[in-house]
Amino acid sequence: MAGLGVGLIGTGYMGKCHALAWNSVASIFGDVERPRLIHLAEWNRELADDQAHKLGFKRATGNWRDLLLDPEVQVISITTPNALHAEMAIAALEAGKHVWCEKPMSPSFADAERMLAAAKASGRKAVLGYNYIQNPMVRHMAKLVKSGAIGQVHSFRVEMDEDFMADANAPFSWRSEAKSGYGVVDDFGVHPLSILSTMLEPVEAVFADLGKPYASRVTADGTARDVENFDVAHVLLRLTDGVSGAIQLSRAAWGRKGRIAIQLFGSDGTIAYDQERMNELQLFTRSGKPADQGFRTILAGPDHPPYNLFVPAAGHGLGFNDLKAIEAHELIRTIKSGQGHVIDFAKGLEIERAIHAMAKSHSDGRWVRLRD
Amino acid sequence: MAGLGVGLIGTGYMGKCHALAWNSVASIFGDVERPRLIHLAEWNRELADDQAHKLGFKRATGNWRDLLLDPEVQVISITTPNALHAEMAIAALEAGKHVWCEKPMSPSFADAERMLAAAKASGRKAVLGYNYIQNPMVRHMAKLVKSGAIGQVHSFRVEMDEDFMADANAPFSWRSEAKSGYGVVDDFGVHPLSILSTMLEPVEAVFADLGKPYASRVTADGTARDVENFDVAHVLLRLTDGVSGAIQLSRAAWGRKGRIAIQLFGSDGTIAYDQERMNELQLFTRSGKPADQGFRTILAGPDHPPYNLFVPAAGHGLGFNDLKAIEAHELIRTIKSGQGHVIDFAKGLEIERAIHAMAKSHSDGRWVRLRD
Amino acid sequence: MAGLGVGLIGTGYMGKCHALAWNSVASIFGDVERPRLIHLAEWNRELADDQAHKLGFKRATGNWRDLLLDPEVQVISITTPNALHAEMAIAALEAGKHVWCEKPMSPSFADAERMLAAAKASGRKAVLGYNYIQNPMVRHMAKLVKSGAIGQVHSFRVEMDEDFMADANAPFSWRSEAKSGYGVVDDFGVHPLSILSTMLEPVEAVFADLGKPYASRVTADGTARDVENFDVAHVLLRLTDGVSGAIQLSRAAWGRKGRIAIQLFGSDGTIAYDQERMNELQLFTRSGKPADQGFRTILAGPDHPPYNLFVPAAGHGLGFNDLKAIEAHELIRTIKSGQGHVIDFAKGLEIERAIHAMAKSHSDGRWVRLRD
Amino acid sequence: MAGLGVGLIGTGYMGKCHALAWNSVASIFGDVERPRLIHLAEWNRELADDQAHKLGFKRATGNWRDLLLDPEVQVISITTPNALHAEMAIAALEAGKHVWCEKPMSPSFADAERMLAAAKASGRKAVLGYNYIQNPMVRHMAKLVKSGAIGQVHSFRVEMDEDFMADANAPFSWRSEAKSGYGVVDDFGVHPLSILSTMLEPVEAVFADLGKPYASRVTADGTARDVENFDVAHVLLRLTDGVSGAIQLSRAAWGRKGRIAIQLFGSDGTIAYDQERMNELQLFTRSGKPADQGFRTILAGPDHPPYNLFVPAAGHGLGFNDLKAIEAHELIRTIKSGQGHVIDFAKGLEIERAIHAMAKSHSDGRWVRLRD
Repeated sequence: MAGLGVGLIGTGYMGKCHALAWNSVASIFGDVERPRLIHLAEWNRELADDQAHKLGFKRATGNWRDLLLDPEVQVISITTPNALHAEMAIAALEAGKHVWCEKPMSPSFADAERMLAAAKASGRKAVLGYNYIQNPMVRHMAKLVKSGAIGQVHSFRVEMDEDFMADANAPFSWRSEAKSGYGVVDDFGVHPLSILSTMLEPVEAVFADLGKPYASRVTADGTARDVENFDVAHVLLRLTDGVSGAIQLSRAAWGRKGRIAIQLFGSDGTIAYDQERMNELQLFTRSGKPADQGFRTILAGPDHPPYNLFVPAAGHGLGFNDLKAIEAHELIRTIKSGQGHVIDFAKGLEIERAIHAMAKSHSDGRWVRLRD
Repeated sequence: MAGLGVGLIGTGYMGKCHALAWNSVASIFGDVERPRLIHLAEWNRELADDQAHKLGFKRATGNWRDLLLDPEVQVISITTPNALHAEMAIAALEAGKHVWCEKPMSPSFADAERMLAAAKASGRKAVLGYNYIQNPMVRHMAKLVKSGAIGQVHSFRVEMDEDFMADANAPFSWRSEAKSGYGVVDDFGVHPLSILSTMLEPVEAVFADLGKPYASRVTADGTARDVENFDVAHVLLRLTDGVSGAIQLSRAAWGRKGRIAIQLFGSDGTIAYDQERMNELQLFTRSGKPADQGFRTILAGPDHPPYNLFVPAAGHGLGFNDLKAIEAHELIRTIKSGQGHVIDFAKGLEIERAIHAMAKSHSDGRWVRLRD
Repeated sequence: MAGLGVGLIGTGYMGKCHALAWNSVASIFGDVERPRLIHLAEWNRELADDQAHKLGFKRATGNWRDLLLDPEVQVISITTPNALHAEMAIAALEAGKHVWCEKPMSPSFADAERMLAAAKASGRKAVLGYNYIQNPMVRHMAKLVKSGAIGQVHSFRVEMDEDFMADANAPFSWRSEAKSGYGVVDDFGVHPLSILSTMLEPVEAVFADLGKPYASRVTADGTARDVENFDVAHVLLRLTDGVSGAIQLSRAAWGRKGRIAIQLFGSDGTIAYDQERMNELQLFTRSGKPADQGFRTILAGPDHPPYNLFVPAAGHGLGFNDLKAIEAHELIRTIKSGQGHVIDFAKGLEIERAIHAMAKSHSDGRWVRLRD
Repeated sequence: MAGLGVGLIGTGYMGKCHALAWNSVASIFGDVERPRLIHLAEWNRELADDQAHKLGFKRATGNWRDLLLDPEVQVISITTPNALHAEMAIAALEAGKHVWCEKPMSPSFADAERMLAAAKASGRKAVLGYNYIQNPMVRHMAKLVKSGAIGQVHSFRVEMDEDFMADANAPFSWRSEAKSGYGVVDDFGVHPLSILSTMLEPVEAVFADLGKPYASRVTADGTARDVENFDVAHVLLRLTDGVSGAIQLSRAAWGRKGRIAIQLFGSDGTIAYDQERMNELQLFTRSGKPADQGFRTILAGPDHPPYNLFVPAAGHGLGFNDLKAIEAHELIRTIKSGQGHVIDFAKGLEIERAIHAMAKSHSDGRWVRLRD
């Protein structure tokens, strides 16, 4: 049986990441047919040709709609700016293609709803690029929680921080425009929500306080322009089972580069994790003598599948791109069998619902429930 | 000139800590007269006698009011349960004694106000036991902030966690009674507030979500009794200058023993700190080549006074009790000269105002401003 | 121009690692032609066929010599047990193939010398699989040393530890046989030596004390068999410029999974590194105010090439397999231009010379100089 | 019963440390009579008077021999430069005083032997200031080892590093003179040896390579003077039971301030410790599921006596000076009952024997056995 025919729209940060994943997934896992890298779209033909050559795609185009018409293309990776996701994903689904779309779905909740509707109508699989849930240590965290290793979780905290907006003197960019979204809230907020969704109950209500460290930034012509969205967010959450927690986000946290720090507090233990040390997990349980208790640093290894398919020795480490390869594998499984550890458009819409609720909560200064 | 005559009420956890501080402060600092340990009060004479012998006090009593009448006693350490602070502190001040009272002032805000009024009326010094602000690394943090080392602070996060209420099966105790206070909110919340007060602007408004991981606990007679206060708190804050932040507290965080994790985010850098590693400070600044930037772990040393008066070599470490000795020194300075790095009753009342606002915010589900 | 035609012998731990690297190198780097995965050899045809399918090779064979005759094969990856390296590498070179051979060269120094002679005679490139030197953080360490960031290095320490031989009750295996080599000395020792060779002067003399934590192990038939080589090594080194240091190795260090802890002490600073946290580097320099000095934790990022070609954002992390892709890229550069950051057979022989000197030092109980 | 009458010679770094310990030990432990601080000696009367006032001693003198004649003095703390220890300790013992002498005993082994002989002849207790063995976490480490928590220890590593000699441009001082001793070897080497002596078997043989990072230093008059001893040491050890290990020492390790990093490898686990984080211990045992194994960070707490007598809550931290108070307590116990966890002159001489063997090994370039 031939491998999936792949189309790719966009070859930036995540585009290349998708290409690498499509390229390596079969060799790593050995249980799926090698995807065929068929058609790549970029903003113009020249760039597309160049990238297709580099990334190993057979055909290239400056018009992404060409992929819809390509009979060899069965699944399309969409890695363009968020505002373009809806149009492309809906078109792809309507053309009968499976879709692997980067997160978040869309700055517009209505568009995100339309994306889900299109997925349902198409009968195709539509999956979002929430790669952090694929980290074997994040999966192990979920497994520990579900197995009761830390008892009943009663509260949690998540922080996600980087520093690409930390420089007050960096020029105004599209990232600070309202039309790109709420800023750090959707940019980052979706990640903690996606991770939590794999181990805890759904979000019931949110309360958010959003911040603009720098009220204005200088534009290219030297004038100041008001920043239209948020670089900092402090959010409280209540889950449907009464668990409470907080998510804190910053794109302006100097020195933080890829921090996703998670703490889960349970009746029998605590789990702590930080994506900047993505091959480690901290686990405290109350077992054993008090004098010998402590947080143990678990190093990723073959006992945390699918780490074993990358390296047979523990402690040697996976990298960020490996997570995308795992995601590609789960996507293929989903397409082939309907079973896969993924955030599909239905689950993704719930994440975005929470994001929009955060923005509303901030505006209204009150708790916002996700549904009545 | 003779050293201060000291009275001590209570010889438990903090009582012993005060006694050790009074006993060692002169030898450590060398610039104050040796305090004279005069009179110690406990619940009964027998215990008082025993403790006075052990802790080196001259006289002992089963009636704390005896200290008020003792002409040799000039300053009284109050280390009894919070609910007793007001009566004792007010009586001591009225008797013309200086007061060194453990935090918080009182479960009752009205009582705390009366304490402040008594302090003002007395002309004596009234200081609270906020020892964490005395840690040389916390002081260095404040110095860095004030000197602009991380630019303008725009947001912050503080966590304070221990696990003494983490065991769901631990019996119901006074700690879960409403009359002891709001639980973790006043038990722990005052510490982050005290630390922040030494480096940032005052709190303008708070929003709190308080949690009870265990709704009831078993009493001595085997029946379940409802827990009346909170073991978990998630709090958002806005300061008067617009800085926003969050404080998160838990007495039910398995494995955390003395965590006070502080993160300050500024326009030029970030500071991170954790009291469990109280001899370290993490500092990130954007200076130097990007390839060589990173959080630096600063080890406490003689360049962080008054560490130098304890040990002349860096990296050898201070301990929790040393902080109280520093506090005793600042108290003596305050009594002698009016100058000292302390939280007096006036500042302390502001901290308690914020605590009560948190409780009110939780009840009302809305932001509560500290003053109109 | 077509990409290199690749042959692969062996598909175990490192064989798969090579296959993944050959498969991904072009997409990651974009500046080399895509290697063509031509011919794969395993112990039998059936396994070879299966692996060729999984790993994307065109042809498969149960006889590795078939690769020598395959005109499409230009470079051969040799990933078989160490004792087979010499025969295969020499044959490959004589057949006009470039060679990418896993480390170490051979348990026999004479064989290693023959391998180098064959490489020289062939005019082909012969490169060893020392992947840790490719870690962007290890490269950055070398750059810092060479640029004088820590002044003149005067001493160093390296530890390399795993725990696969830590279980006293694990059965006797080939790893404990003398014919497999000296045990941890060649198994691990070559890695620190390879890393040090990229930043410090050559080794002048060694003194070694080698240990057998367990004198015998139980064989399959239940009898005890003497362990013939070493699981623990403590080695002192002097470099040609007088720098002194130590390398300590253990295959019996419970809990260590991939530790390669390096400390370099210089006249102006210190560097510390641990492969278990391969995306971090610790740097101390004496610049700035003493009160603010400390080891800074540098997170891997785009400023540490070629990290930038994997992920454009810092702190997201590379993994073990990524190092092999970098190595493949350096190998291709070496083949194409003669320039590449690799350990070739000439450099590799020097590493093995030091290993054999360690064994001799232990036997003789004296310093052994590497050359007269 | 009155507390011990104390004399103190020297009030520098360790002198103040002794004074603080004598002053606080009774209040902390509550089970010993309060020592009476009787007589303090310094180089001149003026300084002695000043220090006696600050440190709370009753009498002061510029002539240390006055303490010998003081009938109230029962025990004498000797905290002067190493070269003076022998004369003072012997005189004190001959005068019938107990002795608490800072480490090491003496730069001269013959003098150290005379010190032991004097102690034996006197019938008094003679104890050395090896405070690190008093750290509750070091004690817990010893307890874990002895209880078999990590099985049979088969190898170990210790590093001790500071940076007070790291600056190449720092002027020549007495520390670099041969008459002060071997440099880092005795300055630091005695500490690892003292710690190891509390948990492992005695040293059988040593092999040492000693280093001078800077061959000469500039004197006050601007000329270069040859450095006469060593700032760096790499030492291999074999214990009487066949355990092997290494000790590495540096006074020239930029950024290290109080590092004493210990690793003990056993047949069932590993312990790791660093004095710079003196309130933590790392323990790995092979118990539990492999997927959940890891080094656990044990925080010091009341389960690690005598921590409980300092603070009743875990994770709050002891400091360097607290270790001396524990040592004072053990000394008092030793004086009162003959039982105490101390390094007396007999054990101390064995430590010094190993130090001199290291120096000889370096000179001779061979293993040196401690006894025939």
